[in-house]
Amino acid sequence: MKMTVSVPQGFRLAGVSCGIKQDSSREDLTLIVADAPSVAAGVYTQNLVYAAPVAVDRERTPSDKMRVVAVNSGNANACTGQRGMEDALEMARLAAEACDAEPDQSLVMSTGIIGDFLPMDKIAAGIRSAAERLGNDEDAFLSAARGIITTDKSHKIAGRSIEVAGQTIRIAGMAKGAGMIGPKMATMLAAVMTDARMTPADAQAALVAAVDDSFNCISVEGHMSTNDTVLLLASGAACSEPLAGDALSAFRTALREVCIELARQIPDDGEGASHLITIDVCGTATRDDAFSIAKTVANSNLVKTGISGNDPNWGRIVCAAGYSGVQFDPNRLSLRLNGTLLYRDGAPVEFDATSVSHSMQENRETHIILELAEGDASARFWTSDLTVDYVRFNSDYHT
Amino acid sequence: MKMTVSVPQGFRLAGVSCGIKQDSSREDLTLIVADAPSVAAGVYTQNLVYAAPVAVDRERTPSDKMRVVAVNSGNANACTGQRGMEDALEMARLAAEACDAEPDQSLVMSTGIIGDFLPMDKIAAGIRSAAERLGNDEDAFLSAARGIITTDKSHKIAGRSIEVAGQTIRIAGMAKGAGMIGPKMATMLAAVMTDARMTPADAQAALVAAVDDSFNCISVEGHMSTNDTVLLLASGAACSEPLAGDALSAFRTALREVCIELARQIPDDGEGASHLITIDVCGTATRDDAFSIAKTVANSNLVKTGISGNDPNWGRIVCAAGYSGVQFDPNRLSLRLNGTLLYRDGAPVEFDATSVSHSMQENRETHIILELAEGDASARFWTSDLTVDYVRFNSDYHT
Repeated sequence: MKMTVSVPQGFRLAGVSCGIKQDSSREDLTLIVADAPSVAAGVYTQNLVYAAPVAVDRERTPSDKMRVVAVNSGNANACTGQRGMEDALEMARLAAEACDAEPDQSLVMSTGIIGDFLPMDKIAAGIRSAAERLGNDEDAFLSAARGIITTDKSHKIAGRSIEVAGQTIRIAGMAKGAGMIGPKMATMLAAVMTDARMTPADAQAALVAAVDDSFNCISVEGHMSTNDTVLLLASGAACSEPLAGDALSAFRTALREVCIELARQIPDDGEGASHLITIDVCGTATRDDAFSIAKTVANSNLVKTGISGNDPNWGRIVCAAGYSGVQFDPNRLSLRLNGTLLYRDGAPVEFDATSVSHSMQENRETHIILELAEGDASARFWTSDLTVDYVRFNSDYHT
Repeated sequence: MKMTVSVPQGFRLAGVSCGIKQDSSREDLTLIVADAPSVAAGVYTQNLVYAAPVAVDRERTPSDKMRVVAVNSGNANACTGQRGMEDALEMARLAAEACDAEPDQSLVMSTGIIGDFLPMDKIAAGIRSAAERLGNDEDAFLSAARGIITTDKSHKIAGRSIEVAGQTIRIAGMAKGAGMIGPKMATMLAAVMTDARMTPADAQAALVAAVDDSFNCISVEGHMSTNDTVLLLASGAACSEPLAGDALSAFRTALREVCIELARQIPDDGEGASHLITIDVCGTATRDDAFSIAKTVANSNLVKTGISGNDPNWGRIVCAAGYSGVQFDPNRLSLRLNGTLLYRDGAPVEFDATSVSHSMQENRETHIILELAEGDASARFWTSDLTVDYVRFNSDYHT
């Protein structure tokens, strides 16, 4: 990852190793500290079975007084009952204490093994250690980004700077996730910081909209985790008045771009993935219809295995669209794969299968476009292909 | 398959090789002929993209005048447009002609490659050849059962004989399916014959109910095909009056058992499968709720890979239940795997993981029981595990 990200003003970060991960050279505890009370918004897993840190953060956001986010990787603090809740609250309290904040001015995220209790002594030591190393430079940011990953091949970051009303506003985000993967690893997490000033309500609305077009439009194997969390923190350090009007619109556009850039990195790093698959569905009556079709195609193991084999198998894609539950005229359905028309108005067309297969082999990214004739709505979805390595990875662990 | 099936009276069958499959030693065309006009009921794929033979049969059932069903394997006649419809009607006409019936007294089923036109000369020759070899014995039945399979490891059959009102009624069924599998193979098909006499409406209602508890409760990879068809044919040869009251109830029970026995064989033969997984969900408010939870667990790649690795990974199962869309109290959720309690009232319990893993390794069948406390409803679902061989099989083909 060669990307350079400017850390927004008003934040200091650090990622340290505190011994949760077996490999002690890998960071497993991250602190994100706001110098002053900041706006925080959150979007969380819809799973009925959700982890203790999700319960804590859901209660505390949106907010205008957050000071710190503590994240650990290697242990999800999920399915841990009452003791898990107490541990999550204690982790939040320790983080607040480390930066002289009130106990309820902190948020927590956890990712890793399900069903084990947090090693609170290591968490406490890690928070103390991280609090001593906080920085606002790129190294600090990268160490923090590494501290939240688990089985990811690398950290995932994205950033934007925009000029609004003569001021520079920075947005910088980090994410983790590569599937909900074994032995009992879970989750996608993301934290996006900005030095924009905004109201909690605007922050929450902007985050919900951005997540809807990004983190809600990806899958590796379609397994929704217990810990999924996306946070937005706004320090307000770059401007004196809350964003409004065109400035707020510009911010929302940039936030959406950052979230999409982060989200795409997750299926691209999907366990064992050899292709990042982008699925565009257009010409539906509603965006929900396009989304449902795209998601159904994305979660078809037959589509995913076909693409891992570089097979331009239009039959599997068309068939998956047909069972998405969306009503459409199948005689108006057309399909393009990596730019080549394979299927038009409900019937296959002649195409050079060798050449399309070759383009799939040459490019990590495979692009599917499904065109319908029901309306003007559309949606985009990203997923990874399904490979032998995915199955090996997720079968070979034993509890 | 050592099972013995009594062929119901009033039917003759044959399976022959007509050259659709590459291996000329394998049957690929089956005729099921009723000696007299018979009752026929059908249940079909819900896929919007459905094949021509589905369109023909859906139009013609329920009926009280069917004489013949022609089935070919190796070519699905799906996504073949107007010409495909003409071919399906011609195949039906040829089958009717071969047994001196009217053109509309026949049904057709096809399974195999999507997007290729039926080789009508081979179909015509196959129908003629099969019509000359019709028989009512077990050999005829088995050749017919072999004629409908594609990538199945073996034919799939089941039967029951019941005594009602002093008469013996026979039910005998055949099925095919092992996933919707490559290069572009599709589909589950089943044909169940009985010599019971019944009204078309009773036959249709009995079949819908039986399919709901059997073929609708299985998945290999959750990909609904373009050709899925289940037919019930009732010759009436064993009794003079239509079944009613207790006799009809007894028939419905036996039909359900035959359909379940056939359906279970499909995920058991799922592509590359090393485990048949039975999922029982009980204690829900409605049967739909139990079904949704069971199906979500069944279609989780993480659950399926975990089981292929003999891993008693309760976290993946509980997590999948949580994102099924069904509302329930997660603190009242409990889970048993192969009889061992792993999770009780929302929290993990201590268990001997080595022993449970060992039981998974020793038994082809894995049994998951999820218990909730929302009501008295329940559902059962069957699926296969997800193995490296599944991915290999479905990736390694090229168009």
